[in-house]
Amino acid sequence: MSETQYHHHGRFPVSGGVLPDAITAYRTYGDPKNPCIVFPTCYGGRLDSQDYMVGEDKVLSTKKYYVVTLALFSNGESSSPSNTPAPYNGPYFPAVSYEDNIRAQYAVLQKLGVKTVFAVVGFSMGGQQAYYWPVIYPDYVERYVAICGSARTSPHNQCFLEGPKAALVASKDFDGGHYKTQPEIGKRAFGRVYSAWAYGQTWFRQHGHLHDGKYPDLESFLREDWEGGFLGWDANDLLTLLHTWQTGDVSRVRDGGDLAQCLRGIKAKGLIMPSKTDLYFPPEDSVDEVSNLQNTARLVVIDTVWGHMAGGGANAADDKFIADEITKFFEE
Amino acid sequence: MSETQYHHHGRFPVSGGVLPDAITAYRTYGDPKNPCIVFPTCYGGRLDSQDYMVGEDKVLSTKKYYVVTLALFSNGESSSPSNTPAPYNGPYFPAVSYEDNIRAQYAVLQKLGVKTVFAVVGFSMGGQQAYYWPVIYPDYVERYVAICGSARTSPHNQCFLEGPKAALVASKDFDGGHYKTQPEIGKRAFGRVYSAWAYGQTWFRQHGHLHDGKYPDLESFLREDWEGGFLGWDANDLLTLLHTWQTGDVSRVRDGGDLAQCLRGIKAKGLIMPSKTDLYFPPEDSVDEVSNLQNTARLVVIDTVWGHMAGGGANAADDKFIADEITKFFEE
Repeated sequence: MSETQYHHHGRFPVSGGVLPDAITAYRTYGDPKNPCIVFPTCYGGRLDSQDYMVGEDKVLSTKKYYVVTLALFSNGESSSPSNTPAPYNGPYFPAVSYEDNIRAQYAVLQKLGVKTVFAVVGFSMGGQQAYYWPVIYPDYVERYVAICGSARTSPHNQCFLEGPKAALVASKDFDGGHYKTQPEIGKRAFGRVYSAWAYGQTWFRQHGHLHDGKYPDLESFLREDWEGGFLGWDANDLLTLLHTWQTGDVSRVRDGGDLAQCLRGIKAKGLIMPSKTDLYFPPEDSVDEVSNLQNTARLVVIDTVWGHMAGGGANAADDKFIADEITKFFEE
Repeated sequence: MSETQYHHHGRFPVSGGVLPDAITAYRTYGDPKNPCIVFPTCYGGRLDSQDYMVGEDKVLSTKKYYVVTLALFSNGESSSPSNTPAPYNGPYFPAVSYEDNIRAQYAVLQKLGVKTVFAVVGFSMGGQQAYYWPVIYPDYVERYVAICGSARTSPHNQCFLEGPKAALVASKDFDGGHYKTQPEIGKRAFGRVYSAWAYGQTWFRQHGHLHDGKYPDLESFLREDWEGGFLGWDANDLLTLLHTWQTGDVSRVRDGGDLAQCLRGIKAKGLIMPSKTDLYFPPEDSVDEVSNLQNTARLVVIDTVWGHMAGGGANAADDKFIADEITKFFEE
């Protein structure tokens, strides 16, 4: 397994101010002479969790590609409220945009000597980064794969995100981000609010939440997967990372908010893979986007009941479908 | 306008214990000699809010029908945590089921001398009550109309409800239900968590939340419609009413949890009207239910982007569609 490395950017301007010593955490896999694949993290993702698609015999093959995984700011590995020294620690951490993240990732790739990126691949917030890359560095990226993501965070998606955010911010132990110990009550509420959004209604109807007997009931599922799932995260990190997501919009980078025009300007080849049952990155948004990607992108809907989670390594059938489509796309 | 009346049940057993002096608030409209329509409230509904369908020239015509609107326990008008004396006040209020509500409503109708119910009509939690009526009183109800409801609260619906509940319970001012003043922070979080569920994604994509210029942005919409919308509610009322919803399942009344068998036993004629874009009472659940209603019920999907709200008087087009279908159904 690759060791996590840390790139120090020095003084680094971000959308909400500046980080005096911004750090991007990343890992590299395979031979640097191979074509480079960039695979940034999603919400709730760490560099470790990228392994579901990276390996000798996985779709992002470390035998065929030089794979670079990069941690988003606020994920707890790159610069985040939880690991940044005063005066930008905790609730004082500045807002960070996707554009800031991509600029930072580009700096890492420059240091690694990557001359051109064969493909950017991402799921969810990673899928949003996959859209940003060819917009910001049009001559550097050949392909991108956006899985359960979008080029702009839709109003409904923004509204959904207000839910977990509101629960955490209003919680009895969050204390405006000035908590002395982790606000466990707030984070548990955050997880519960999030849970029903992550899968399709049919998945629950088919009792997917019981995970073939792992859980006796909905409550156990919520306690372990959704309360437990966020306990390892810092509350301020969760909020600033959520802010990055909520403000996603490639057309802020150029074209003054005209998303259609911005998308029409993308030169890289795209593979856009929404999940049919995704409740916050619904396929309709992808259809709209692909209609503006002219002939550069292909839409392939993941036919699944797993909702958003389909794209994140949640089950073997969807994993295989996604891997096969990506492999085909890489060979085109 | 009809005056609100209060029926005292005396000592009234409920699923979580007993209410020493249970009260059902209700109103009557029109001539008692006309066919009787029962129209119970939904979540967040008061007797006042039933007026959107009740009136001389509305679908529940007070010229043609004797309309009785009834308030759910926990809605703040019927017995609720907020209006029940000690020792069952506030957080000490017992759990109440749909079955308890229907038994109470039946007692009111008996007092009013209603010999048979021409139709029960309901939206959302009202739609769930519409299913309960013919199950509990099979020889008393001729027709029922379930708008954006279901005969059993699905696991996904239960999971969605955990969100607003968790936000309120975890909030800094809820204090385990022992608050001395209303927990405004908790209720605002509750509303924000709820908001994105109430409409379809497409409604937001079309900027429905801006309400044709009423709101400049998502934040204003959330503040007025969703934070403001719940400030007039008591927090404990919100939670016990939510519990009634969360535990809805007609097959608990009979057939030992076998929903298909319970539905097959319904004799009344049903009109089942889900909204195409409802995120927590999705039409697929209605399709399943109607498949077990043999030839007694008809499914009519409301083709709308308004999500769940389509059934609650949110816009003229859906109102008209629903009214026309109900009128046709009443004449069959």
